[in-house]
Amino acid sequence: MSRWEPNARGRLEKAALDLYSERGFEQTTAAQIAERAGLTERTFFRHFADKREVLFGGASTLEKVFVDALAGTSDAAAPIDAMASALESAAVPFLERHEFARQRQAVIMANAELRERELIKLASLSTALAATLRRRGVPEPTANLTAEAGIAVFKVGFERWIAASGDRALVEFLRESLDELKAVAAGE
Amino acid sequence: MSRWEPNARGRLEKAALDLYSERGFEQTTAAQIAERAGLTERTFFRHFADKREVLFGGASTLEKVFVDALAGTSDAAAPIDAMASALESAAVPFLERHEFARQRQAVIMANAELRERELIKLASLSTALAATLRRRGVPEPTANLTAEAGIAVFKVGFERWIAASGDRALVEFLRESLDELKAVAAGE
Repeated sequence: MSRWEPNARGRLEKAALDLYSERGFEQTTAAQIAERAGLTERTFFRHFADKREVLFGGASTLEKVFVDALAGTSDAAAPIDAMASALESAAVPFLERHEFARQRQAVIMANAELRERELIKLASLSTALAATLRRRGVPEPTANLTAEAGIAVFKVGFERWIAASGDRALVEFLRESLDELKAVAAGE
Repeated sequence: MSRWEPNARGRLEKAALDLYSERGFEQTTAAQIAERAGLTERTFFRHFADKREVLFGGASTLEKVFVDALAGTSDAAAPIDAMASALESAAVPFLERHEFARQRQAVIMANAELRERELIKLASLSTALAATLRRRGVPEPTANLTAEAGIAVFKVGFERWIAASGDRALVEFLRESLDELKAVAAGE
């Protein structure tokens, strides 16, 4: 029988990120993560399918929030305005997560397999956003280009947020990044 | 001593693509490709490091052509106009290559590992384009967003070219795709 552990998931996440940073992702085991968190390996596997899911478990949450927000925008909105609104929602899961996101990014950048996985995640997100726009009646190639523009804005804004101190919220970087993309496209 | 084989590279490419399409990429060996082309395995390895390079050997050519064209544009040009000009050059290696590109895309889409490799190729291209823009004095985040916009235009235009009959050149699809991105960003 397992007893309830206060904030077990958060403790496991922190222990995992610390160990991945200290000794590398490949060199860390689920048992070591559980030990560092003062929990059992069984508790680890109740929260995560494997040690990679500590890094990518949030991806499906992000995709769901992003796609649902886009699907919920008014059909009358221009596709880029629908995307702007969806980007505001996509920033929400990252509130209070700057340190986690920063540490996670460093771990991912240090490992080729994890970098690939991150690219796949973004490509899958782009595909899902384009499909959502098509369902809203946006024709091709507009749907695909709007989705790719949204991902570009998210990626660049996210990287700038990670590199900054954490005082400003992700949503502000996403807004700036979208404004900048509009300026670029307008030839400014 | 090896004798000269007329258009050995082209014959090997065609044999490889045919075999990858017929029996799958994983199930095809370099020996089978050489045999289908009526050449020796040794000739295959004079032209390609491995069977994956038949599909991705063009990636470094594309990156070189694309980056060189971007580097060669006037510093006075707006970043998006420099990118537009570079996209015209990036289409050149694909002249007379519609059938190859179409068949290659189908092989890549059928294999998860090859799809990942294609994503990595595009991410590497985006990084190289952003670095080229920074060297031309374009600040961040403009450089990164222009590079990502260029890749989005290339990706969407390329997919539409592949899906079309091959009567129209890639460059036309890239121009349309860029115009469409501008319209999207302008909220049209």
